[in-house]
Amino acid sequence: MKALVYHGPGQKAWEEVPDPTVQADTDAIVRVDAVTICGTDLHILKGDVPAVTDGRTLGHEAVGTVTEVGAGVKNVAVGDRVLVSCITACGSCRFCREGSYGQCLGGGGWILGHLVDGTQAEYVRVPFADTSTFKIPDGVSDEEVLMLADIGPTGYEVGVLNGRVSPGDTVVVVGAGPIGLSVIMGAQLFSPAHIVAVDLADSRLEAAKQFGADVTVNPSRDDAGEVVRALTDGLGADVAVEAVGIPESFEQCTALVRPGGTVANVGVHGAPATLHLEDLWIKNVTITTGLVDTYSTPTLLKLVARHQIDLGRFVTHRFPMSSFLEAYDVFSAASETRALKVVLTR
Amino acid sequence: MKALVYHGPGQKAWEEVPDPTVQADTDAIVRVDAVTICGTDLHILKGDVPAVTDGRTLGHEAVGTVTEVGAGVKNVAVGDRVLVSCITACGSCRFCREGSYGQCLGGGGWILGHLVDGTQAEYVRVPFADTSTFKIPDGVSDEEVLMLADIGPTGYEVGVLNGRVSPGDTVVVVGAGPIGLSVIMGAQLFSPAHIVAVDLADSRLEAAKQFGADVTVNPSRDDAGEVVRALTDGLGADVAVEAVGIPESFEQCTALVRPGGTVANVGVHGAPATLHLEDLWIKNVTITTGLVDTYSTPTLLKLVARHQIDLGRFVTHRFPMSSFLEAYDVFSAASETRALKVVLTR
Repeated sequence: MKALVYHGPGQKAWEEVPDPTVQADTDAIVRVDAVTICGTDLHILKGDVPAVTDGRTLGHEAVGTVTEVGAGVKNVAVGDRVLVSCITACGSCRFCREGSYGQCLGGGGWILGHLVDGTQAEYVRVPFADTSTFKIPDGVSDEEVLMLADIGPTGYEVGVLNGRVSPGDTVVVVGAGPIGLSVIMGAQLFSPAHIVAVDLADSRLEAAKQFGADVTVNPSRDDAGEVVRALTDGLGADVAVEAVGIPESFEQCTALVRPGGTVANVGVHGAPATLHLEDLWIKNVTITTGLVDTYSTPTLLKLVARHQIDLGRFVTHRFPMSSFLEAYDVFSAASETRALKVVLTR
Repeated sequence: MKALVYHGPGQKAWEEVPDPTVQADTDAIVRVDAVTICGTDLHILKGDVPAVTDGRTLGHEAVGTVTEVGAGVKNVAVGDRVLVSCITACGSCRFCREGSYGQCLGGGGWILGHLVDGTQAEYVRVPFADTSTFKIPDGVSDEEVLMLADIGPTGYEVGVLNGRVSPGDTVVVVGAGPIGLSVIMGAQLFSPAHIVAVDLADSRLEAAKQFGADVTVNPSRDDAGEVVRALTDGLGADVAVEAVGIPESFEQCTALVRPGGTVANVGVHGAPATLHLEDLWIKNVTITTGLVDTYSTPTLLKLVARHQIDLGRFVTHRFPMSSFLEAYDVFSAASETRALKVVLTR
């Protein structure tokens, strides 16, 4: 089969590799029908994730059809249409039993396209298939469901739920890339008073408005603190969500939150931030971090099936898998191409 | 009357001042029967709290007897024995109505011995008396209740409850001064598996054992991380409580906590800390900060009255108010005197 293979920093190829096979009796083999590229894949290609080694097939998001299952697989069968989630779960370790699948101690967690071969291929081996795939209800498109492989539950769990967004809240989302937009979409389920999007790119602020932000701030022109305080009797945001992944945006969130509020970090960070405890110790602030667990995926699948949320809106570009290298180029040049998510199909 | 008056950094005197009078109809005047000194008072005397100005009577913890009330006071009457809490609450602002009295927007919060004259005096004016005092049940001593003016609820709310200490948890408390000991005492109400006390002073570790820690670590001899990991299958503490107030101890807490665990900051900080988001972003960690609200004071009063907790154990030294300067000397030299809390009476 063909796969998108990583060959060290800056090097990748769409090339012939061996077909995956069942290695453990809990494995399934899934024919990939639709797959996408994540910002994390770009980080890997920069060499930021050294655990990914030369020869690894990338990708941790897919929709596909089961073609083979190990003898121990009970919940999915050949022919089933499934979502392959970014999180693989053994289903039986201490953390999986708590629903903290992202922290799986039994060989799962984020492994696809990281520690084992991933989904940017014609076929993928999915370990622990019973607890790492989701059967797809009829009537929802591959594209809609594909957005639930990562950005849907990441924005919802790590941003909206960790942030405890509540009716009447003023929610500020710093960073309006795909993850920030996912937070904006999910936050509306809890009827906040205001969703304020903060980003340096006007094109992303325009997208934020389309996804449901009612206030946008470009810090190169306006002061986010002033805008948020004007909306909140001078107090600050009830919830501030960090969706960039750099120290400055995290520190901005801790400055924008009100006494008693929550800062939910969603961004993937490569460097430490400064925590101004000399201001924060007295403010009753809660700060959360997290890798997605995907415990919310069944809920989000229902919301998609009922058309309460429209995740298909993230898809801006479509390619056949044979154009994988071009798709990477378009996705990585998002500031020019305005790409949010690209979808590749067979 | 006599009062302990601050006269700028390093300067204080037990001196004659005017008797306090009712200024607003919600005030009460309380005769101070027992009063204590807080570590925060030492910070003020170092000049760390510039909002405290020359001429301010210090102190934010007292037990006393009401001698006068304004016309609008309904819940306490002349002759009532009351606890004067470190937190004054207007009772009607947005935060007070949520129980976040420490963040009071209506002129309360921590004001006694800070923005208005405090309790280290023969009499004290207590603003918003209805919502800032607690009537004391019969059968409990002044000393026991006095410990509920600050350290009892601070350890319980900001350490134990914010930390979500739960049955079976391994709880690590970094810093075994009075506040750390209060956390250790309160944590036991939730039946943790282990309470690990970490402190550089063996005398404080000895006190931690007496207050309920089953494991103690002196980092000058042993590695707290190794000890905690050995107790937790290598994962780390379920809850890590910072009870020192310096960047190093906060950073130690973030290193000691397990994936999915909580760091509860109780310490009063004067400098920023480094938050290692490059490690923490993926760990589903919750970090809380807070000033005490005293919403738990009625609960703790019941626990004291039922002898479920013994807060009188904090009292190591007793003085008449006329020896206030000597009491400060003993309290500020705690490493030699082994003072935990000192009590002054009329």
